[in-house]
Amino acid sequence: MSENNKIEVDSLNSPLGVGVKLFVIKIGGNVIDEDASLQAFLKDFAQIKAAKILIHGGGKIATKLGDKLGIESKYVNGRRITDEATIDLVTMVYGGLVNKNIVAKLQALNCNAIGLTGADANIIPAIKRPVKEIDYGFVGDVDTSKMQVDNLQLLLSAGLTPIIAPLTHDGKGQMLNTNADTIASTLAVALGKKYDVRLIYCFEKKGVLESVEDDNSVINLITKDKYQQLLADKKLFDGIIPKIDNAFDAINAGVKEVLIGDAKDLLKNVTDEVNGTLIK
Amino acid sequence: MSENNKIEVDSLNSPLGVGVKLFVIKIGGNVIDEDASLQAFLKDFAQIKAAKILIHGGGKIATKLGDKLGIESKYVNGRRITDEATIDLVTMVYGGLVNKNIVAKLQALNCNAIGLTGADANIIPAIKRPVKEIDYGFVGDVDTSKMQVDNLQLLLSAGLTPIIAPLTHDGKGQMLNTNADTIASTLAVALGKKYDVRLIYCFEKKGVLESVEDDNSVINLITKDKYQQLLADKKLFDGIIPKIDNAFDAINAGVKEVLIGDAKDLLKNVTDEVNGTLIK
Repeated sequence: MSENNKIEVDSLNSPLGVGVKLFVIKIGGNVIDEDASLQAFLKDFAQIKAAKILIHGGGKIATKLGDKLGIESKYVNGRRITDEATIDLVTMVYGGLVNKNIVAKLQALNCNAIGLTGADANIIPAIKRPVKEIDYGFVGDVDTSKMQVDNLQLLLSAGLTPIIAPLTHDGKGQMLNTNADTIASTLAVALGKKYDVRLIYCFEKKGVLESVEDDNSVINLITKDKYQQLLADKKLFDGIIPKIDNAFDAINAGVKEVLIGDAKDLLKNVTDEVNGTLIK
Repeated sequence: MSENNKIEVDSLNSPLGVGVKLFVIKIGGNVIDEDASLQAFLKDFAQIKAAKILIHGGGKIATKLGDKLGIESKYVNGRRITDEATIDLVTMVYGGLVNKNIVAKLQALNCNAIGLTGADANIIPAIKRPVKEIDYGFVGDVDTSKMQVDNLQLLLSAGLTPIIAPLTHDGKGQMLNTNADTIASTLAVALGKKYDVRLIYCFEKKGVLESVEDDNSVINLITKDKYQQLLADKKLFDGIIPKIDNAFDAINAGVKEVLIGDAKDLLKNVTDEVNGTLIK
């Protein structure tokens, strides 16, 4: 991280502004797939004193298990197709194995976790994606008008920590597969009405990089003006642009701030210093 | 069911006595393994207006999936041995596939279900069974002193319906396999302090039978005196005796009444008439 770029934000553990602070944190395969990195992340996560929600992806476990069961991973334009065998597979792996092992590990760290999918307490109803050029299968687009985030609030108020698997349901008895990044931003926006939400995306880089080749060239703060300038200068690599766009979408919809970076750095530091990229 | 034996009990849908009524219902493989029977059961279950909790077993799905994955089902003295591969398997199948599909189906029936294991919200902590003559592996004996049933109460008070998979955790990060009957009776007893609990075991018979060969010879009421008499007369088949003993154990520990019978009959009738065997 570039030393001259450090900025101050509210302490991770102190109330922010007038509202009650809530951390909505998304982790993916790079954290989940390795026991040591998951354990290290959960240890940091458990220590966050503020209210918090964890959204986890599935990692490679579903693909590995699918291979053993002869369930082929199908992709069209880089997006997974969720057929009947695959929705059962991800319901088992994301909603069962990954989710419950995270919960058990957090319980051991004195974090009273409760593992859920979008079907549970009807938190995240969705609509099966309509078939146009591509039939994505059992994939759900969140129906934000029907989300029952008051049930998440109930749990948070009781001191519980929801751990959410990237699964939704169609309200007709069918589980659906939904992108974990989307679930994180959708929940962050919905809860932004009640809490000062910091949305945190953990990924494999230390943050948004000024120079793709230099892992330490982290840009610590991206404002709208800064973003326009970075785009104009063509400094950003392609993969990061949708993430930043999503971050600004979330902010425009009421999320207080979005932090992007490496899980190892993002939670370790509970002082007033930001590691990673803060977008606000 | 023997017509001359019908008895009156409180309506399934009206408050019972001074306390608030709570149904704790356990279903096993005979309900879960067939789509039509599960759907029929859930339809009846969703219509119960009283507070309710469902505990489900795993059925044959875990064994079938285990076979595909080359995970051998090992039994000693009729009890499953839960090795490392098996605890992952049942965490996936019980905690994921079975649990979440029940939740999604109940949501479609306007029952706001929330699927949990004993690790979630630390509802059912357990102790890994000590190795004596047999090493049962990752099997948990419930630690009743540490159960957080107040978290179930929180959910019930908010109008949510907990759906519990037969899994617990050891408080050290490890999921454990626990018998679903045991989870049902343990929860019923713990919640018996707060609610008037009717504990219902759904099994493959219509109830306790006066004559094993006659499926319609259901004994509708078993009191302690009646039970002693049935034992003296050697009327009961061996398999049912532990179930009745467990029922009386639950009653002695504060459960209001226990009902044993076929899922098809037990919930369908929401009048004042009992199908199956009532033990009190």
